Amino acid sequence: MRISAYFMPTLKETPAEAQIVSHRLMLRAGMVNQCASGLYSWLPLGQRVLSKIEAIIAEEQNKIGCHRVIMPTLQPASLWQESGRYEDYGKEMLRVKDRHDRDLLFGPTNEEVITDIVRQYVKSYRDLPQILYQITWKFRDEMRPRFGVMRGREFLMKDGYSFDLDYESARATYSRIFESYLTIFDRLGLIAIPVKADSGAIGGDLSHEFQIMAETGESTIYYDAAYDAFSPEQRTFEHLQTLYAAADEKHDAANCPVPADRLKSARGIEVGHIFYFGKKYAEALNLKVSGADGQAIIPEMGSYGIGVSRLVGAIIEANHDDAGIVWPDAVAPFKVALITAKTGDAACDAIANDLYEKLQHARIEVLFDDRMERPGAKFADMDLIGIPHHLIIGNKAIQEAAIEYKNRRTGAREMIALSAIDTWINHMR
Amino acid sequence: MRISAYFMPTLKETPAEAQIVSHRLMLRAGMVNQCASGLYSWLPLGQRVLSKIEAIIAEEQNKIGCHRVIMPTLQPASLWQESGRYEDYGKEMLRVKDRHDRDLLFGPTNEEVITDIVRQYVKSYRDLPQILYQITWKFRDEMRPRFGVMRGREFLMKDGYSFDLDYESARATYSRIFESYLTIFDRLGLIAIPVKADSGAIGGDLSHEFQIMAETGESTIYYDAAYDAFSPEQRTFEHLQTLYAAADEKHDAANCPVPADRLKSARGIEVGHIFYFGKKYAEALNLKVSGADGQAIIPEMGSYGIGVSRLVGAIIEANHDDAGIVWPDAVAPFKVALITAKTGDAACDAIANDLYEKLQHARIEVLFDDRMERPGAKFADMDLIGIPHHLIIGNKAIQEAAIEYKNRRTGAREMIALSAIDTWINHMR
Repeated sequence: MRISAYFMPTLKETPAEAQIVSHRLMLRAGMVNQCASGLYSWLPLGQRVLSKIEAIIAEEQNKIGCHRVIMPTLQPASLWQESGRYEDYGKEMLRVKDRHDRDLLFGPTNEEVITDIVRQYVKSYRDLPQILYQITWKFRDEMRPRFGVMRGREFLMKDGYSFDLDYESARATYSRIFESYLTIFDRLGLIAIPVKADSGAIGGDLSHEFQIMAETGESTIYYDAAYDAFSPEQRTFEHLQTLYAAADEKHDAANCPVPADRLKSARGIEVGHIFYFGKKYAEALNLKVSGADGQAIIPEMGSYGIGVSRLVGAIIEANHDDAGIVWPDAVAPFKVALITAKTGDAACDAIANDLYEKLQHARIEVLFDDRMERPGAKFADMDLIGIPHHLIIGNKAIQEAAIEYKNRRTGAREMIALSAIDTWINHMR
Repeated sequence: MRISAYFMPTLKETPAEAQIVSHRLMLRAGMVNQCASGLYSWLPLGQRVLSKIEAIIAEEQNKIGCHRVIMPTLQPASLWQESGRYEDYGKEMLRVKDRHDRDLLFGPTNEEVITDIVRQYVKSYRDLPQILYQITWKFRDEMRPRFGVMRGREFLMKDGYSFDLDYESARATYSRIFESYLTIFDRLGLIAIPVKADSGAIGGDLSHEFQIMAETGESTIYYDAAYDAFSPEQRTFEHLQTLYAAADEKHDAANCPVPADRLKSARGIEVGHIFYFGKKYAEALNLKVSGADGQAIIPEMGSYGIGVSRLVGAIIEANHDDAGIVWPDAVAPFKVALITAKTGDAACDAIANDLYEKLQHARIEVLFDDRMERPGAKFADMDLIGIPHHLIIGNKAIQEAAIEYKNRRTGAREMIALSAIDTWINHMR
């Protein structure tokens, strides 16, 4: 992508309304634009990051046998009356009347709709287990939307729902998704700590929040230091769920089971929440399947959420410095930044154009700053928007046939001979 | 994908409520489920088709320099009051009040929001032209939703908006998008005829509908037979816009400029609509940029829509037979169907499992019917859901080391020696 033709409106000033760093940086990087309180448009750079996160989540969920669906944004109130939640749900749920005066609602969650789908088709024990998920825009009418996309009203969410024949199977499904979530956050370049959460009126121990470590996190998490020593392979459900982890409002220092010298604390941002809730919705909506013996079985359900748009903010909270965002490679809007330090100089432009072609040919996502701007402004923009790998075509490229490489995260710089650039590109793929 | 673990609830009975063939087949194939009047859930098979169409549209739009964004589903009424459309738009627009009693609406289109974004950032003639688009769910409160996803209330739409400095540039943008649309429909396996349309109160000749040829189409299109002789390369805007094409309500046989022997007619389904509307929204929302001479310029705009979810229905209307859907390869939910005719027979299962691995390894999307069903039911399901290429593992596979191949569209069958299957797979990639 050539910036001269791109829509990437970076801002020099820090918008006054933004209270937290991710909100400030997303506005300054031209990733989002506020349309109304808690409602954001995602500009091209933001859309790219969002779609990368979405793709990673979908890939990992598909890998463990979840199937993707799309449920409508608007839902009939009748289904919520059937489950008994229509009145319970407060003002956060947006209620709407259509032209025929029928009650609809902007779905904040989808237990009712998915149970309604499954009860129409799934009749036999042979059809279970089943896990269905979607990645769609939800709306919760927050009293005071704030912190940009971290606490907006409209947000992109992955919500999944599982149906199993018995508790043992439901627990196995829960653990499979628990582990898939850890893999997802790992691929996103985040350290996630699963923290036991209240599963509400239903009880049971199967509810976890996933907290992302970030210095600017919203709450303090206390956890067993043993966690840090685990390799990715060791981070299984059975292994982790015995380890202590609690958010500050639950943590009681006097009665903590972990000795003080093994207890660590860190700031966390909640980005996922999973829970097993048994037969609640299946019973309310009369979902039954026939068992091998012909007896009716009421399936056990769970639901599994990830805040996808919230993750964009959370990743920035965990990955930034004074100069701007520092994207992990996996979610960077572009992997490589190509910068001409002497735009307009024929030799400089020729080298840059040639390199741009090569990178595109190698299918490396490259953002080429071909604008007639001073080099300092270009470097600052690429730092601000957080592209991981910078290639700078300056005097040396012209005189000594060498390009400067800068790693955005470490700040490390080195010269790459033009003759070695093909090797570098191959390595970057 | 193994059907035994998939969520693909095909129906044997034709649902009584479905009046048109695409609606019937989408319900029978388990692609969609009606949640309420005009509101559909997309089940896994349907979601796959939808995402393929979406990917093709995005790829082609990006290729001509459009940039993808996401605007919020809910929009503030204030922007529509500013453009003057808030009162004009009738009952099809869903109006909502939030918890603070502020007026929102479920966006049926986005001229206001996009113009609001552009006016905040685009200040100089150097920043134009610019084309921004999104692919998101829209809502129009149809009086009588019908024909399944062809005329639902909630629908997936690609909407794009262009900003140019003058009419000549706007016309060039229009023609670029016109041609991109033809490429998109071509890749989707459809024959599209652009038909001049009213551009409303603004006037001018720059508005076209794209009509897909299908015997079951909603209106008759009369067009110059010369169109059929054009190669894809000849289908340029300048070339095509001089050719006669009109929908029945506009066609006047007595005054048709095309001689009767060169006039053809066909049924069509509208799947796209593009128009140039000049300065209307830029003026209303006070969007101005400064020109090279410092004078203020009011940009020329156009908007460009494709009904993405409607296309799923339109493709089926144009591609089906008595047995079911016949997907073009490019949008098929899976490319290859693998069917065991003797499930449970160890030799048959071994060959099928091996082939399934090979196909997956080659990254060919394969749907493996591994259920304990009679072969006839399996064949019927694969025909119904329209997978283009069927591989059948039956007696011959066991006795003569050969697999039966069936082409869903032509019905042609041939035997493929197991020893030649790697070549076949390579060819299929």
